[in-house]
Amino acid sequence: MFTRSGYRPPVTVPQLVRFCAGDSGQWSIRGIDAFRGESLADAPRLAVVLHDESPPGPWVLRGFTSNERYVTGAERDVLAAVQEGLGRPEATVAALIPIQKSQAWWALPQDERRAIIEERSAHISIGTEYLPAIARRLHHSRDLGEPFDFLTWFEFAPRDEGAFDELLGRLRATEEWRYVTREVDVRLERAA
Amino acid sequence: MFTRSGYRPPVTVPQLVRFCAGDSGQWSIRGIDAFRGESLADAPRLAVVLHDESPPGPWVLRGFTSNERYVTGAERDVLAAVQEGLGRPEATVAALIPIQKSQAWWALPQDERRAIIEERSAHISIGTEYLPAIARRLHHSRDLGEPFDFLTWFEFAPRDEGAFDELLGRLRATEEWRYVTREVDVRLERAA
Repeated sequence: MFTRSGYRPPVTVPQLVRFCAGDSGQWSIRGIDAFRGESLADAPRLAVVLHDESPPGPWVLRGFTSNERYVTGAERDVLAAVQEGLGRPEATVAALIPIQKSQAWWALPQDERRAIIEERSAHISIGTEYLPAIARRLHHSRDLGEPFDFLTWFEFAPRDEGAFDELLGRLRATEEWRYVTREVDVRLERAA
Repeated sequence: MFTRSGYRPPVTVPQLVRFCAGDSGQWSIRGIDAFRGESLADAPRLAVVLHDESPPGPWVLRGFTSNERYVTGAERDVLAAVQEGLGRPEATVAALIPIQKSQAWWALPQDERRAIIEERSAHISIGTEYLPAIARRLHHSRDLGEPFDFLTWFEFAPRDEGAFDELLGRLRATEEWRYVTREVDVRLERAA
């Protein structure tokens, strides 16, 4: 079990993950909605794969899990004590939300990005309110030359979809989100 | 010209760089010395290439340039005002120093890593003392599943090699360096 002060999550090797739209995959695409910027092409299925062979399809987005970039030790202890992992049987709905931020964002130094993210936008603390219902995993894409900077992935039970939409609305109203230049909401459900 | 308070460096797209040991390349390898952990195989030349085709050879190390991870706005203003770029004609000596840090390092949250790097090890301020003589570029490798976490690259004039060695010695004596599990010093000179 975790304790708030002493828990350290296990360090895992960064993992390259591919999100492949197409005719196959463990997730059915229910809808694709561009919140800002250009959308993505329609497809019936999404395959989330950890290996190199990506099935052919209209798009493939790549990103890697990595060490944390902004969360402090105290914040991480809180997150670690309440969050749950991916793959819960009741979490039959998922959202893949690729996000691109502006050049102005990436020109900011670390301390200014951190201040905008948490001290002024409360991104981490807003997200914590929706734990453990909303499980998530962040993938970094910008360093791979991908069209998006991040691939955010969320899993939740159907009853929590309203809360998830509320979470999105609150984040999109923050100062941090002024730096978002492209965001697409791909909503999915576990394929039968 | 720069001003300390207002300068913002141009944002560049992350760039994948390959360091390829072998029989060809613009740098002659003068020596390879393992400071900690396993060394790298000998080779006569090093090619630093920005494209995908890596010439065959005993080893290829890959890393990407990226946004800054620790430097504050104030620190970056100081760096930007005094640092010089790669490729200066008088900088005929180079050092490629691949570095791996421990699992314990990567398990630390952002604020603890920052505190060790600068508040307790003065990494950024020590490095600033050696500007503009020592030009450098940092490449991130860990997220690519590479054997090293960072590929650090330095260029300087032959007369500044003593200062560079002093810089290495000071950094290796810091608390931050206790987390270094592997470090190899590849010393090079521009090939005729």
